[in-house]
Amino acid sequence: MCGVFGMFSLSEEAAPATYLGLYALQHRGQESAGMVVSDGKKMRSHKGMGLVSQVFEEEALAGLPGQVSVGHVRYATQGAAHIANAQPLMAVTRHGPIALAQSGNLTNANLLRVELLQTGFTFQTTTDSEVILGLVAAHEGPSLQEALRQAAQRLTGAFALCAMTHDRLIGLRDPLGIQPLSIGRSGSAWFLASESCAFDAIGAELVRDVRPGEMVIIDREGLRSEQFAKGVREAFCVFEFIYFARPDSVISGKTVHEVRKEIGRRLAKQAAIDADVVIPAPDSAASAALGYAEASGIPYDVALAKNRYVGRTFIRPTESLRQLGVQIKLNPIAASLKGKRVILVDDSIVRGTTSRKTIKLLRGAGAREVHMAVASPPFSHPCHYGIDVPSQDELIASGRSLDEVRRLIGADSLHYLDAEALYEAIGVEGGGLCTACFGGGYPTPIEDADPSFPEFLEGEMVPR
Amino acid sequence: MCGVFGMFSLSEEAAPATYLGLYALQHRGQESAGMVVSDGKKMRSHKGMGLVSQVFEEEALAGLPGQVSVGHVRYATQGAAHIANAQPLMAVTRHGPIALAQSGNLTNANLLRVELLQTGFTFQTTTDSEVILGLVAAHEGPSLQEALRQAAQRLTGAFALCAMTHDRLIGLRDPLGIQPLSIGRSGSAWFLASESCAFDAIGAELVRDVRPGEMVIIDREGLRSEQFAKGVREAFCVFEFIYFARPDSVISGKTVHEVRKEIGRRLAKQAAIDADVVIPAPDSAASAALGYAEASGIPYDVALAKNRYVGRTFIRPTESLRQLGVQIKLNPIAASLKGKRVILVDDSIVRGTTSRKTIKLLRGAGAREVHMAVASPPFSHPCHYGIDVPSQDELIASGRSLDEVRRLIGADSLHYLDAEALYEAIGVEGGGLCTACFGGGYPTPIEDADPSFPEFLEGEMVPR
Amino acid sequence: MCGVFGMFSLSEEAAPATYLGLYALQHRGQESAGMVVSDGKKMRSHKGMGLVSQVFEEEALAGLPGQVSVGHVRYATQGAAHIANAQPLMAVTRHGPIALAQSGNLTNANLLRVELLQTGFTFQTTTDSEVILGLVAAHEGPSLQEALRQAAQRLTGAFALCAMTHDRLIGLRDPLGIQPLSIGRSGSAWFLASESCAFDAIGAELVRDVRPGEMVIIDREGLRSEQFAKGVREAFCVFEFIYFARPDSVISGKTVHEVRKEIGRRLAKQAAIDADVVIPAPDSAASAALGYAEASGIPYDVALAKNRYVGRTFIRPTESLRQLGVQIKLNPIAASLKGKRVILVDDSIVRGTTSRKTIKLLRGAGAREVHMAVASPPFSHPCHYGIDVPSQDELIASGRSLDEVRRLIGADSLHYLDAEALYEAIGVEGGGLCTACFGGGYPTPIEDADPSFPEFLEGEMVPR
Amino acid sequence: MCGVFGMFSLSEEAAPATYLGLYALQHRGQESAGMVVSDGKKMRSHKGMGLVSQVFEEEALAGLPGQVSVGHVRYATQGAAHIANAQPLMAVTRHGPIALAQSGNLTNANLLRVELLQTGFTFQTTTDSEVILGLVAAHEGPSLQEALRQAAQRLTGAFALCAMTHDRLIGLRDPLGIQPLSIGRSGSAWFLASESCAFDAIGAELVRDVRPGEMVIIDREGLRSEQFAKGVREAFCVFEFIYFARPDSVISGKTVHEVRKEIGRRLAKQAAIDADVVIPAPDSAASAALGYAEASGIPYDVALAKNRYVGRTFIRPTESLRQLGVQIKLNPIAASLKGKRVILVDDSIVRGTTSRKTIKLLRGAGAREVHMAVASPPFSHPCHYGIDVPSQDELIASGRSLDEVRRLIGADSLHYLDAEALYEAIGVEGGGLCTACFGGGYPTPIEDADPSFPEFLEGEMVPR
Repeated sequence: MCGVFGMFSLSEEAAPATYLGLYALQHRGQESAGMVVSDGKKMRSHKGMGLVSQVFEEEALAGLPGQVSVGHVRYATQGAAHIANAQPLMAVTRHGPIALAQSGNLTNANLLRVELLQTGFTFQTTTDSEVILGLVAAHEGPSLQEALRQAAQRLTGAFALCAMTHDRLIGLRDPLGIQPLSIGRSGSAWFLASESCAFDAIGAELVRDVRPGEMVIIDREGLRSEQFAKGVREAFCVFEFIYFARPDSVISGKTVHEVRKEIGRRLAKQAAIDADVVIPAPDSAASAALGYAEASGIPYDVALAKNRYVGRTFIRPTESLRQLGVQIKLNPIAASLKGKRVILVDDSIVRGTTSRKTIKLLRGAGAREVHMAVASPPFSHPCHYGIDVPSQDELIASGRSLDEVRRLIGADSLHYLDAEALYEAIGVEGGGLCTACFGGGYPTPIEDADPSFPEFLEGEMVPR
Repeated sequence: MCGVFGMFSLSEEAAPATYLGLYALQHRGQESAGMVVSDGKKMRSHKGMGLVSQVFEEEALAGLPGQVSVGHVRYATQGAAHIANAQPLMAVTRHGPIALAQSGNLTNANLLRVELLQTGFTFQTTTDSEVILGLVAAHEGPSLQEALRQAAQRLTGAFALCAMTHDRLIGLRDPLGIQPLSIGRSGSAWFLASESCAFDAIGAELVRDVRPGEMVIIDREGLRSEQFAKGVREAFCVFEFIYFARPDSVISGKTVHEVRKEIGRRLAKQAAIDADVVIPAPDSAASAALGYAEASGIPYDVALAKNRYVGRTFIRPTESLRQLGVQIKLNPIAASLKGKRVILVDDSIVRGTTSRKTIKLLRGAGAREVHMAVASPPFSHPCHYGIDVPSQDELIASGRSLDEVRRLIGADSLHYLDAEALYEAIGVEGGGLCTACFGGGYPTPIEDADPSFPEFLEGEMVPR
Repeated sequence: MCGVFGMFSLSEEAAPATYLGLYALQHRGQESAGMVVSDGKKMRSHKGMGLVSQVFEEEALAGLPGQVSVGHVRYATQGAAHIANAQPLMAVTRHGPIALAQSGNLTNANLLRVELLQTGFTFQTTTDSEVILGLVAAHEGPSLQEALRQAAQRLTGAFALCAMTHDRLIGLRDPLGIQPLSIGRSGSAWFLASESCAFDAIGAELVRDVRPGEMVIIDREGLRSEQFAKGVREAFCVFEFIYFARPDSVISGKTVHEVRKEIGRRLAKQAAIDADVVIPAPDSAASAALGYAEASGIPYDVALAKNRYVGRTFIRPTESLRQLGVQIKLNPIAASLKGKRVILVDDSIVRGTTSRKTIKLLRGAGAREVHMAVASPPFSHPCHYGIDVPSQDELIASGRSLDEVRRLIGADSLHYLDAEALYEAIGVEGGGLCTACFGGGYPTPIEDADPSFPEFLEGEMVPR
Repeated sequence: MCGVFGMFSLSEEAAPATYLGLYALQHRGQESAGMVVSDGKKMRSHKGMGLVSQVFEEEALAGLPGQVSVGHVRYATQGAAHIANAQPLMAVTRHGPIALAQSGNLTNANLLRVELLQTGFTFQTTTDSEVILGLVAAHEGPSLQEALRQAAQRLTGAFALCAMTHDRLIGLRDPLGIQPLSIGRSGSAWFLASESCAFDAIGAELVRDVRPGEMVIIDREGLRSEQFAKGVREAFCVFEFIYFARPDSVISGKTVHEVRKEIGRRLAKQAAIDADVVIPAPDSAASAALGYAEASGIPYDVALAKNRYVGRTFIRPTESLRQLGVQIKLNPIAASLKGKRVILVDDSIVRGTTSRKTIKLLRGAGAREVHMAVASPPFSHPCHYGIDVPSQDELIASGRSLDEVRRLIGADSLHYLDAEALYEAIGVEGGGLCTACFGGGYPTPIEDADPSFPEFLEGEMVPR
């Protein structure tokens, strides 16, 4: 999914606020982090592999003076996990130096790449952002703003874009509004971010979401808006509500935690199960499980907790240790599960392997029955817009009956939330959401150009 | 508090299991980690600063062959945060090579140090374990077992000790049972650990706790037990139940999570508050808050969550960012708090600064009232047995009335759990617990020797 | 100056040989190192800041399979010291994926940049190589070879270029032959390198130098050559012979060490000094000093040695230590200097600070007289072709008389080698060398475009 | 061999000077480095694996305030390469806190270890220094000075020791003076160091060598001396003059470089060879080769140079690269060697592998004849005092005739220096030097206790 952040201020140093904003967006991508800051004369970039707190030591922030910035946290989807693919991109163009940070995937990137190559453009990364850079640079018009508008009109797919020059911050959101992008403000400083939780982290207020097909331009004159495209419909990614967004973020005026609790309540009504305890699958299903417990009257418990000290667990256990599986990271509390009929609430099932392990773990801890309640419809189709899901044949719900899935994961019963109920809980009609992953149809064309194009190029840089 | 682990096996490689055991005990100490493993001929040690997963790369484990081991995770209390103070200690003595891992603090360590210095012993660290090493080495008797027994009889304070030779694992627990130490088993392999969650992590079963004043000897012949001291009373650290132990651990036959839920229920009965929502203070109060919600009938919510991506947040924010305080790491969900009367459940209040910030944060997110319910009595006295608490004058409850504390933290009302109710919830009489931190009297003498002794020596090693 | 390396083989893995070649060229640049290797389907790049042995761990080489490669060691001149500026560059173009490694500086880079920007090209680095990439990509013709030829005809300045596609290695040397580039061979494998010492390191034989204005194309068919430009004159960098090249390299058929000894002999004849001992300035003047000693009959001694354990010496000494200056790294041997009349031979004097310190050190060690003999004419003009020299006003010989310089460095007498004698020692007429740094006139135009262009962009990446 | 350094000052910060001193002694040991500094109240230690410049970052030095210090660079001989074995040792004893840094090996260490274990002492390292610590701690007398004197009288073997308390620096040198130790002074500050080059590095003056069997005590009162033992003879390590010491050091009033040149002259007289050029084996034979060239009248050349960019060369070359052998690090200059009769001067031959490779390399570069002239007698016996030499059967000169050795290394002729001539060159009679490695007899008893004792214990610490 990736997370983007942008800032325009006349007085406040941008780097610390951008750091905090990216830190708050960390859940949207942990592969790499970066920011570009301009002091009006120089743009300086700092990027690295890993978490925001690992990439930005205090010294790095001190080396990024200036009041205008864009930042990025990357979640690898298209393009290999290399520093060369870390964002923001920074380049000198005919419009002067610009920097770009983008979330979401284009679905016509390769078509555009082929076209740009013919004009003499080259690609040093496999990011979609470099395609946008090429379109912007190709435009002869007088201003970056105009170049960005025309570039944006060429793009198909999902994108939320933060672009900057020395004295301007520009935000764009795809015509269907698949990707989220919000506007924040604090005094005379303006902000853009994938989620409003980034504004909370820096004491700024959420002004509103950027509209589908809207370009906002922020500079000394304040914020101006123009519509670069008129979407035929809105198609906001439903998975942001289900799983991806942070519970304290506000999207389309709704707090994600409250939406998820309502989803849980709907799930309880739709799938009434006779049981003793409701427990959330770690880590993201707590809100839905609370709603389920509330609506069902069945007690909520946290009898399955994650080891707080996560970290790369590389260990290759001996044969006798191998059977332990996920137990290193998950702690079932036997005394709270023994003899109980358990409802395990999860936000979704993708491959099903985690569900199977978790259910086995619960039974091993003494649970008498394990019923699986899923806070979304069956995940049956791949996402082309930025969520990193496996190919269709790895999706457990693809081409299998409910009972087949139930048996594969080892549950006593399995309950998915109906699409209808999901839309009601979110409070929008189906038409306003992208539900392609639930078989709802892709809201944009998917390009048919040679998909192996990005494989031409594989780069890696050693960390020194 | 620190965490200790020990293993004796005839066939299973000890290093991977010890790694997993220490990983499960990580919550007991994050400053350093280490293990010593013997293959019957050589003892090899590997220690480092940081988390278990940082200290032990796969290569390190591969370099530690053998079937007998002791391990340690350190939580700095006595002794500075240096690699020189990392445990286990490993030394050649007149009884051959031995290794020691200890949790808990001695209260007569300096008296013993002075005595040992006079015999020609020297101290290269400031750990209590080196004092035990000195006592063991001083003993002329024929066996390490006898030396350990006599050494243990000289010790005052809290200790759980795992000692090993090339072919023997020995566990000792202080006469009052202040520190926890449990016995586990899996096939022919035996284990010792500070908490039973370490056994779960490696698929072993909890056999029983080591008894106060007991020494268990594990070797080819199996497990033997002898009583090196008879405690006049039992005084298990009440704070293990309240805060320190992992919820899935079983202590004295009771699962910590269930004990904490019961504590929460008692708190609800004792402190009935008219409110709209119960929320736990992050991270450790979830169990008590669940119990409170259950007994009070007031809905439980997780409207105050921690940023999952913890990490050293070094950033020194600009003035305008500085006011944000804890908000970087804590995410209050305004929509779930706005206009609500909130009960904030925490396990204890030490300095009070965190409580004050959290309450301020809740109010900032729109909470109409914030009532603080604490799952333990006022924390008024320092701990001499291993919990790292500030000096008495920094304890907010020391010498202040309930109302003074309430005003300092900014709560609408403040409720502590009575000691009586706490004991009932745990299911033991007061006599069986160490409650010195609640003003309950120290169960052992506290030495009066020059407390600056360890300051003589301050060592540091550079990480290369 | 930078060092470049290229390899084409049908059977031999390229990465290890490229590693050894770059290792041998390390003296040409220590800022960054990198290589690109193709296995016919994928190009893989690995770059990093620091020495070859630091950037390429064994794992990195193992991850670079293939038989065609280009490599680079960078010596910062134009472009800031950032990983973004490390070479080789690798990009997808209309001619497919290519990689480029270049040494030397263009003198019309900014003019070309401005031109390329107008076509929609963008610059993500401040390297000259990206300019060449842009020219190549702009060319519509059918082949990379043709594109490179036409690009090369647009370039002014000094360049030695190694370019590659999946199945071809191409080398180009500037029309005046300012930069060195040689061809090597071992069995069926072909090599290109800045200096022949790289061929020795891999057991290959020096075939010949690439000719000024020549393009060599190496593929399955073997090596072909064409002349992309006909230089009006040859202007090989004289400083390669004086200082830069490794003594065991063969350039224009001459071994550098032997040339330098001859230079020393000429210097002795021209500047006959009555003295007791000849000592070389560390590290590069040994060859010249040997020649001087031989021709003068005055004994050679190494009474001034460098500490073998170089390394970043960051220490900020206390006031009383500060006066020690270079003495940490240089060891004068008082017993060998005391009362002696010393001839200090150095290859050149740039700022003069090192000479002043060294002479002071020799006097402090007891030298009675210190005469400075310099194996080149006064260095009076900046280099625009790749040697990183300070601005003209920092050159001690710029605008100062011989006696002024002598007094500034504190020598009893100062002797420069005449340009005539230098050319004779090298064995070419003045016309065949670039002697611009000695006031000999720049052999190419120097562009007048806005020199601040590269300052537009400043990038940095954190090493993770 | 290791290097030691000590400092006592009333005003000057010790850490920077100790850093510079250790940096100058780096050639004596590259495995680990460390120092202990006292500010009169606290001793602080900082140690690490690697070079002085790697272990001591600026921050580390800033954390070591105080005016009294001891430092150490370690060259692994006895005791494995672990941080646990890095020196100085720092410990609290009955005499208060002390720190110890030692060079040289004891030959009765294991006998003393066994004795100390029986008193209750333990060993946490495998260093000889911990044995000295045990003896000092065992002594009941009133002062550290007395304890050190009595401890020193128990020691057999080679040792130079720097010991310190909060307000005193003490130096001891073994009764035979096998190990070097010198006294330096600068204003009111006193220094001890293995070699006088450390004094040069900090602007101090060499006062004199510590005498065999002497203990010097430096404190507020200045320097006092007493003789703790009267050696029956002096036996200074001849290898210090031949190879180990830095050429600019002054030992016994003689500058090492001058001694080595004289050795070279004697070698030329003893082994007159008809040849064209004299070249030194890298890196240490330059002085001897200069002397040889001077006395023989045959020109000196540096036609075999080391790659300046040393570093761990881990690369496992492919089969075709493997034959290249040492050529990566050594650069023979063919033009200077072709057709020449070469005299290769080296300081000694140990295993002979390096000589064989070097000779092969010279022949490969075109040398017509290669004659090997060695500036010492055949190295035939292992060293028990600190030089890390292989076991006797790996010494090429052990049990082989001159001609056998010559054939093994592939030389046209082989010439060793006679012991007589060596002593004359050094200027002392044979009785004043330890020449055990040349079959001259060990000047001390070599203990017969179980040599496997240190194997009891093997420790390792991870660098975090």
